[in-house]
Amino acid sequence: MTVIDEYLANNAEYARTFKGRLPMPPSKRITIVACMDARLDVYRLLGIKEGEAHVIRNAGGAITDDAIRSLTISRRLLGTNEVMLIHHTDCGMLTFTDDDFKRAIEEESGVRPSWAAEAFRDPAEDVRQSLRRIASSPFVEMCPCVRGFVFDVATGKLDEVTL
Amino acid sequence: MTVIDEYLANNAEYARTFKGRLPMPPSKRITIVACMDARLDVYRLLGIKEGEAHVIRNAGGAITDDAIRSLTISRRLLGTNEVMLIHHTDCGMLTFTDDDFKRAIEEESGVRPSWAAEAFRDPAEDVRQSLRRIASSPFVEMCPCVRGFVFDVATGKLDEVTL
Repeated sequence: MTVIDEYLANNAEYARTFKGRLPMPPSKRITIVACMDARLDVYRLLGIKEGEAHVIRNAGGAITDDAIRSLTISRRLLGTNEVMLIHHTDCGMLTFTDDDFKRAIEEESGVRPSWAAEAFRDPAEDVRQSLRRIASSPFVEMCPCVRGFVFDVATGKLDEVTL
Repeated sequence: MTVIDEYLANNAEYARTFKGRLPMPPSKRITIVACMDARLDVYRLLGIKEGEAHVIRNAGGAITDDAIRSLTISRRLLGTNEVMLIHHTDCGMLTFTDDDFKRAIEEESGVRPSWAAEAFRDPAEDVRQSLRRIASSPFVEMCPCVRGFVFDVATGKLDEVTL
């Protein structure tokens, strides 16, 4: 049995007591942008209930063009007006450099990715980088309601990072 | 009090009973790619426990370049070998067209996004599109362990989509 099969069995159990159907727009009008890391159960660590918040996640929780795309849709079409960025300690993105990673891919596949891998050296500094990327985007206005945090995987706590 | 402040209070409560620190690589060696929709509490609907799975999310659960970046890091650097794609019914991406959305942004901001918005007309067909994008990527090998699903927001159930 694969892990997917195991999760499908869990889903059948989940659906037995499922109470739908909630509205499409997030009821708390907030968007979370977080790293894909397996230890970040974003709904649990923030106490989010189903239907409250959009959740965008990628490697690092980076504000890439795709994160801007998702944020733009979230804010313009679905009315969210707060944004919470979550990076974390012990992140996989601290363990390599873009150059080494892309060289390894090129050597194996013959093709060098045209995208940046978005490795970084310091989670708090990368939160600042993300805040500045939002501020510099013409599509997502920066407001006091965009705030950034580092989640500590040892304590479960969020520490705020300011520009 | 903002929603962020409310979630920070929830996090303080979460941290009180938090048991860290789990290892960095996902223990179940699986990556989920899902829509950012607020109704998809991915950990709950699949019965995922902390530390088990990478979770990538964006508007639509689309396989964009950024999703490929995250999948590549997940598979090459952190050893995952199954991928589960989750789109869903009643998705916001069904409610607009790329042309109209980008024209509205251009009229308001003066700048037309260089990215596709990734609107679609049918969730199952867009799952197939995502499966084909993974298959055509030189960086993430397609294998029998890449499977796609549509989550029904009315019933809580997952329906598998095949190519």
